[in-house]
Amino acid sequence: MDFTEHTATEAVQNSFSETPDARLRELLNTLTRHLHAFVREARPSVEEWERGIEFLTAVGQACTDTRQEFVLLSDVLGVSMLVETLNEQEGGTESTVLGPFHMVESPPRELGDSIDLVGEAEPCVVSGRVLSTDGTPLPNAEVDVWQCDENGFYDVQRPDSQPPGNGRGLFRTDDEGRFRFRTVVPSHYPIPTDGPVGQLLKATRRHPYRPAHIHFIVRADGHVPLTTHIFVADSPYLDSDAVFAVKHSLIVDFAESHDEAAAALNGVETPFRHAEFDLTLPRQPA
Amino acid sequence: MDFTEHTATEAVQNSFSETPDARLRELLNTLTRHLHAFVREARPSVEEWERGIEFLTAVGQACTDTRQEFVLLSDVLGVSMLVETLNEQEGGTESTVLGPFHMVESPPRELGDSIDLVGEAEPCVVSGRVLSTDGTPLPNAEVDVWQCDENGFYDVQRPDSQPPGNGRGLFRTDDEGRFRFRTVVPSHYPIPTDGPVGQLLKATRRHPYRPAHIHFIVRADGHVPLTTHIFVADSPYLDSDAVFAVKHSLIVDFAESHDEAAAALNGVETPFRHAEFDLTLPRQPA
Repeated sequence: MDFTEHTATEAVQNSFSETPDARLRELLNTLTRHLHAFVREARPSVEEWERGIEFLTAVGQACTDTRQEFVLLSDVLGVSMLVETLNEQEGGTESTVLGPFHMVESPPRELGDSIDLVGEAEPCVVSGRVLSTDGTPLPNAEVDVWQCDENGFYDVQRPDSQPPGNGRGLFRTDDEGRFRFRTVVPSHYPIPTDGPVGQLLKATRRHPYRPAHIHFIVRADGHVPLTTHIFVADSPYLDSDAVFAVKHSLIVDFAESHDEAAAALNGVETPFRHAEFDLTLPRQPA
Repeated sequence: MDFTEHTATEAVQNSFSETPDARLRELLNTLTRHLHAFVREARPSVEEWERGIEFLTAVGQACTDTRQEFVLLSDVLGVSMLVETLNEQEGGTESTVLGPFHMVESPPRELGDSIDLVGEAEPCVVSGRVLSTDGTPLPNAEVDVWQCDENGFYDVQRPDSQPPGNGRGLFRTDDEGRFRFRTVVPSHYPIPTDGPVGQLLKATRRHPYRPAHIHFIVRADGHVPLTTHIFVADSPYLDSDAVFAVKHSLIVDFAESHDEAAAALNGVETPFRHAEFDLTLPRQPA
């Protein structure tokens, strides 16, 4: 029987029928059905299909060791955030997208260390606790942190002006589940616009900005890992994040502090900016 | 309002609402709806999403000036053939996929020339007419031809053993709408399996073979261009083409001929293989 508009999906699904991995088979069958439904409804011309192929090719070719343009595409289409949302474990701090800048390992640092290796902007202290959902502090939890600088750039984007590991740190919570580190208040910033995803945003009149935030991945024994951000409360673009990642529960005040004791503890001078919040992890299901 | 499973699609569609190009806006809205529906139904884990990103990145990075892995992916998912089918103009020769090997321009040749520049296999004559759907011959029609050799390789795949342009030719029909050229009978062949699409086929236990065929793009004034193949009637894999491109009306007998007059006309010795067929184009809609 010839391949037609009506037999296409079954023909392709049949071709996957011998796939040994049942989950892969299910994913491919589901993908085929939705992809074909998109094509049938959108009815792209051959030229439009060719432009789609060229676009996806350009996205792949824009990827390097320090740039992940396909993650960026997934982000601006809301797919990354949808996947994150569907996988969210109830009860803990809300999660949000990983983003494309966690491509290098964060350097291990001691509590209280500075992740700002440049030292040109107003100092900021970030501190809080890692807790289980019942309120129990979680000692020795891993807190992986990365952020852009006060100008909106990650270290990998500005290797000439930022040392590797700037804005990144891998911490362990103390006996009371506490973490703290010094940094600078991150800036809002545009996602990279010099590639095909930037062209897509331009063609659709979308702005490329993300509100200011600090990324976290938190891991603790017996608990579900958490990938999230903390957003800076007075940042622009909290209502129109280019990657749809803002959740209101994740917005934190980075207030100016004149607390001399806290300043001494963290090795900064008053006034300094201070963000204080807890990160809560649900227990791993049995 | 926070981005949730239920608000996601509307949020992303709203972000495209200022797109000046109405067709682009429609395509992106439709894509977003089907892509999100896929994600909601498949519920990929974050690790599965990461593997999907890695796969798409590898597909993009496998593309070069002479290799189009994204076309190949579109082909094995039946998307290329579905697009071709949806765009088919009724009344003429059936169309089929462009495929990934039309990435170099075919060299202009005279009727009767050989596109086999190597000369090691049994000669074959391909001939026929380009017609309008009412049967009128179409003189000076452009017939763009490309095919693999008797071992199943296109020139761009074997630059060391095939001269550039081997198996390719750009012809013009004569006053009676006729075309003819010498070549070799192409072999069935595997699509390239050394890239990510090959890994997909392997993981799904799909064979990579295409039945033997010759590609054609035909253009004539006032008519709708035709992209198609002619399939070799005794080829294996006619029933399980890896890219779903076979239509029964496109299968042609490459019979052995002892016709001395035809041999003399085409500059070959008997016996030779001979494929004869017409390619019919519908008139351009007014």
